[in-house]
Parts: sequence; C-alpha cells; structure tokens
Amino acid sequence: MSNKYDLTIIGSGPAGLTAAIYAQRALLKTIVIEKNPMSGGQILNTYEVDNYPGIPMVNGFDLGLKMREHADKLGTEFKIATVQKVEQIEDGFRTVFQNGEAVESKTVILATGAECVTLNVEGEERLKGMGVSYCATCDGAFFRGKTVAVVGGGDVALEDALFLARGCEKVYLIHRRDTFRGAKILQQQVLATENIEVLWDTVTEEIHGDTTVSSLKLKNVKTKEEQELQVNGVFIAIGNRPDTEMVADIVKRDEKGYIIGDETGTTSTPGFFVAGDVRTKALRQVVTAASDGANAVYAVEKYLSEQI
Amino acid sequence: MSNKYDLTIIGSGPAGLTAAIYAQRALLKTIVIEKNPMSGGQILNTYEVDNYPGIPMVNGFDLGLKMREHADKLGTEFKIATVQKVEQIEDGFRTVFQNGEAVESKTVILATGAECVTLNVEGEERLKGMGVSYCATCDGAFFRGKTVAVVGGGDVALEDALFLARGCEKVYLIHRRDTFRGAKILQQQVLATENIEVLWDTVTEEIHGDTTVSSLKLKNVKTKEEQELQVNGVFIAIGNRPDTEMVADIVKRDEKGYIIGDETGTTSTPGFFVAGDVRTKALRQVVTAASDGANAVYAVEKYLSEQI
Repeated sequence: MSNKYDLTIIGSGPAGLTAAIYAQRALLKTIVIEKNPMSGGQILNTYEVDNYPGIPMVNGFDLGLKMREHADKLGTEFKIATVQKVEQIEDGFRTVFQNGEAVESKTVILATGAECVTLNVEGEERLKGMGVSYCATCDGAFFRGKTVAVVGGGDVALEDALFLARGCEKVYLIHRRDTFRGAKILQQQVLATENIEVLWDTVTEEIHGDTTVSSLKLKNVKTKEEQELQVNGVFIAIGNRPDTEMVADIVKRDEKGYIIGDETGTTSTPGFFVAGDVRTKALRQVVTAASDGANAVYAVEKYLSEQI
Repeated sequence: MSNKYDLTIIGSGPAGLTAAIYAQRALLKTIVIEKNPMSGGQILNTYEVDNYPGIPMVNGFDLGLKMREHADKLGTEFKIATVQKVEQIEDGFRTVFQNGEAVESKTVILATGAECVTLNVEGEERLKGMGVSYCATCDGAFFRGKTVAVVGGGDVALEDALFLARGCEKVYLIHRRDTFRGAKILQQQVLATENIEVLWDTVTEEIHGDTTVSSLKLKNVKTKEEQELQVNGVFIAIGNRPDTEMVADIVKRDEKGYIIGDETGTTSTPGFFVAGDVRTKALRQVVTAASDGANAVYAVEKYLSEQI
C-alpha cells in the first residue's frame, strides 16, 4: 500500500482548496482531485464576490486563482479526473475514476459543491449554449446590447441581473414569487436599475428558438395569463444541487442529496469528511466553505492520530 | 426608541468585521463596538497569517486592516468603547459602556474573542512590559541580538519562536510537555532552526529581574531539576481566555467561560448571537471566525424576520 495517501480531497472550490492549504501545513500526504483543469468551483462563475472578508470586490475567477496559488505555493498535489465512486476498503477509501484508475487514502474530504438546477422545460436542453446559460459571467458578454431574461429570485439571480444590465439593452427578471429571497442590498439595486424589469409571479414554461433563443413562453401563476416574451438569451439562476452520487453507498445524505455533516465535517462514516456547499448547513458562502475546509482537515488530523 | 439599532456587534476582530460586512450588505442598522481604536483583534499580534485562504503570507496587522477597510467601504458605523455589560430589555438588548453611555438594539452578536492567559508566577505582573510580553510581533524588535524565551507548545508559541529567532541571538522554547501541540510544519521548522533550543518537560516558576527581566527560574517536571536561565525577555504564549464577563448574566457559558453556541451563532438567549473565538468550537482560526461572522448575521436576519 505504498501509494496510499493520508487524505484525498475531492473538489477544488474554496472548501477543497482551503482543505489543501491546511493539509499541506499539517504535513499530511494529500492529493486533490479536480474535475476541471481550473480550480475555484462555483465562484469561477461569479462576476463579483464582495463578501469574502479582506478581499472586497474581487471577481470569482481571481479569487479562485488566489486560493489555487495559495495551495500551489504550499506544494499541493493536484490530479484532474472525474470520480466515479468512492469505496470503503479495509483501512480507508478507494477513490475510483471514470478511466478506471484509483487512489487510496486513509481519509477523504468530499468538497464537490453543488451544481446548477435546470428549469426542465421544453427547449432548455436543445438551446443550451445557444442562448440558454447558467452563468451570466461566462456568457453575458455575448449579449451586449441585446435583451435577456434572468430566471430566479435569490442572490445569484439578482447579481446576474445587475451584471447583465450593465451591458444589455434590457433585462427581464422572471421570478415565480412576489418577493425576492436575495439580499436586500441587491434587491434595492435591482429595483433602482432602469433597464431591469421584474416580472413577478411568473414562470417560464417553454424556451423558443430555431438555432438560438428567440422568446420565452411565460405564465403568471396568479392571473394564469400567458405571454410570449422576446429575448435573445435566458440566464437560469434557480439554485444548485449537490454532487454526491459517487458516495451514495457509503455515507448518509439528506433528502436533497446533501451529505449530512456538522461543522467539523464529520459524517456518518468514520474517516469520511465533508466540507463546503455539499454538506447540510445553513449558509453556503465562500467564507463558510473555506472555514469548512479548515475544520475538516482538523478533524482528519484528529481522526488519524486516534487510529494508531 | 428612535436610536435603536437592528444589531450591535461587540468586537472588531475577523468575526466582528465579517459580521459587519454581512450586516451592511443585508442593510441592517448596525453599530460595531470596539475596545481599541484599531480593528483586527488577536490577529494584530500575529506576525504572519499563512492560512487565510487567498491571502498567503500576510501579516496579521495587514489582514486586520484589509478586513477593516472592507467594512468601512460598506459604510459600517464603529464606536470605540469598553462594554461593561449587556442587559436584556423588553424588545432587545442594552449594551452599557464603562462611561455610562449605552446603545440599544434588537439583536447582539458577541465577537469579543479571547485574551492571553498569564503564567501567574512571581515577577510576571511586575515585569510586564519590562521584558515580559504576550506578543512577539509587538515587542520582538526590542530584543534584537538578545536572548529570549518563549513559553508554550502550541501554534502561537512555535510561530513566536520562529519569528524571534530571526532577530534574536538565541531563543529558548520552554514547554511543559515532551511533545508540541502546534502544527507539524511549524514543529519541523522550529527543530530545524539553529538558534532555537527546546527545553522539554520544563515549567517557568519565577521571572527574575530588577527593572527588566534578567533570568527565569525553571524546573524540569520529570527530573525535578531546577535551573536559572539567563534571558533578556520572555514571551508567554500559553493560550487564551474568552472575554465574556459582561454577558455572564444573560447567556449560558461553558466551564472555561466560552459562550455556548453552534455554528449558526445561536445561543441560549434568543436574539443574542455569538461569533468567533469566544464561542464553543473545535478550531479557532481567522477563517473559522470570519465564517462565524457571516453565519451569525444570517441568523440575525432570520430572527428579525420572525419577530414581526
């Protein structure tokens, strides 16, 4: 078992990268598995992160890069691979990749975050990348001077609308309720922005277009009135789903698929820890994910010291 | 009750400042009470913080400043005052200052951190500031080319020894056990530093000197051997004590004085929240304190929305 690591960290968003920083400082033999050749996780798609203390007004891409550089500086080993499943073995865990390769380690920190939820309406899948987007930061620039819609009512939807409003002719914000969930400061800004129009109590039923998005079929859930809204693009920002299928057999999850874990990252399975958006928690933010990464490594150290 | 705030934050370390950032973004009418005219809390005394993700190798003073600037940028109201006590009033809390003034608010986040523990030996109090120090970063420069001792075995003691070794002729690290508690990477560095000598199993019984420290009376706890160690200064780094006396009457504390609170900052008293080193938690770090600040504001928002 010579190639065995102390710790496998799965995921390289703020939780995984912070875990890497702490693990390197704790001199744990660690490998970080990342799905994409670019660390940072969801924040990569965030235009501006203004609530990570000490780094105001940073764009998500830069913040991801800063954290990655921090981990690199400490000599972290990264591997790009897609995890198929994590198995329990006699004295630890085997993380199996889609290409059949695997790494073994005494402990695992799962920090795979959560992915965008789709609307699941006609035209959405077909027009993905052709006007249907889940990332305003990535794709917003393609719609300069055009008319777009944002679907959602949380922080991300409000932020997306504000971001898009700077470059687009007009932004419709389509929300199925009559109040936003997002931060009040963002609500104020949205309502004060002239080229943002909020369509309350409204759901998107179909996305239309031949080769690119041309309109949305909307329905007011109170009046039952339908309308066809002409747009060049639609940004879907209605939430996230945790990425936990690969560990479904070895650890307890809640009904939404989040790993049941406390602030120390401890789960139902000894030696298997969790950090960041992928665990059950009240507030999913960059700083709380980073904190989770630190806590989980502390728990790993404690667990390993108790194994001898 | 026109001067009533939504939220009083007591303390301006990483937890208090992060709470301020989140509170401003949530548009809560907030006041931050700080004891000293310099925000940052304990990190101000930390030579180098290398585990705050995204800002590697920053000195504590600069990190404190960055967080303060972040809070200032969002328009946070600060007040310099020493809190005497926090009282419960009909619809919230009254925070009373030593000068008799007070502010009232619907909620409170206590983020007062923890203070240095003293050795409580002869000569310590008398020679404080005359060779006895609790802050290597603050006072280390006065001992350039001299011989000093550091007392302790945790992260801070190891960091202090490393810091002092750069400028001092010789650094003795006095630890009452035969292993360190601090991070392994720091242990390695300490043991590899030529001008640091570790005195294991050793306690400091007295601090000697007329106007400044001249020597320490040490005792080996295993051999019972005593020795007089000539030093010009001694840095005491044996832990911290939470600053919670002012709320002893209104909220539950553990046997060490830490406020009993979970990761959301919720305490035994509705409307009274806690964040950072001052609460019961596994890992006290800058990033976990910052995370607490964010979580506590989220809990405050939830609490306030349920009060109407």
